[in-house]
Amino acid sequence: MNTIEHIGIAVKDMATSNTLFEKLLGVEPYKTETVSSEGVLTSFFQVGTQKIELLAATHPESPIARFLEKKGEGIHHIAFAVNDIEAEVARLKTEGFEVINDLPKLGADNKRIVFLHPKTTNGVLIELCQDIA
Amino acid sequence: MNTIEHIGIAVKDMATSNTLFEKLLGVEPYKTETVSSEGVLTSFFQVGTQKIELLAATHPESPIARFLEKKGEGIHHIAFAVNDIEAEVARLKTEGFEVINDLPKLGADNKRIVFLHPKTTNGVLIELCQDIA
Repeated sequence: MNTIEHIGIAVKDMATSNTLFEKLLGVEPYKTETVSSEGVLTSFFQVGTQKIELLAATHPESPIARFLEKKGEGIHHIAFAVNDIEAEVARLKTEGFEVINDLPKLGADNKRIVFLHPKTTNGVLIELCQDIA
Repeated sequence: MNTIEHIGIAVKDMATSNTLFEKLLGVEPYKTETVSSEGVLTSFFQVGTQKIELLAATHPESPIARFLEKKGEGIHHIAFAVNDIEAEVARLKTEGFEVINDLPKLGADNKRIVFLHPKTTNGVLIELCQDIA
């Protein structure tokens, strides 16, 4: 784990929340991106060297739609940047952590990502992410 | 809002969670501190230029005890560093955000802090914090 890369926040309506976070953070989103495989629309804000990623569902079966149904709007995950995602997943598994997806999948912002299961991480959904060279 | 200063995570048992986050982050906590006025025991981990702050309740009426009862373990708040907390609170209030405490109070890690009400921030409890010079 090198740094906190971003914090993901689940929102119901992207337009409303983009306006809200613009006011809060004092900057406009620098990018929006749809990750069709995950059923999410994302919007990124830069804050210092970190990012805030807003996440809205693109269809009712999206993991974000299910999160919103269960927990409402709020913080969805913390993403940590890693240099070698396979090595970090292997290390964490030997430490007793469970992964949601064993093989890295394609995430937003040109990254390969793996999620750790919140039941092994104090209820915190943790994403490992590695830039695609 | 300059940078994300830390992410606060509510935990039931500090000893267990300290061990868990040591394994997860690959570093030991650099500090533990009790904030009696808030009824919290805190433990800090450095990750890059950010911090992870674990929060455990010191008594059953602590805000952390109530959070754990209602939501269980998980991410509790995001803290943003600001240079002038009074000016930032004034700016945010004119933008329509509500604060939980109008006057900055003493937080962990030698900071003056103000919380924004999650009902005006997409369900995210946001802390503004300014270092005490």
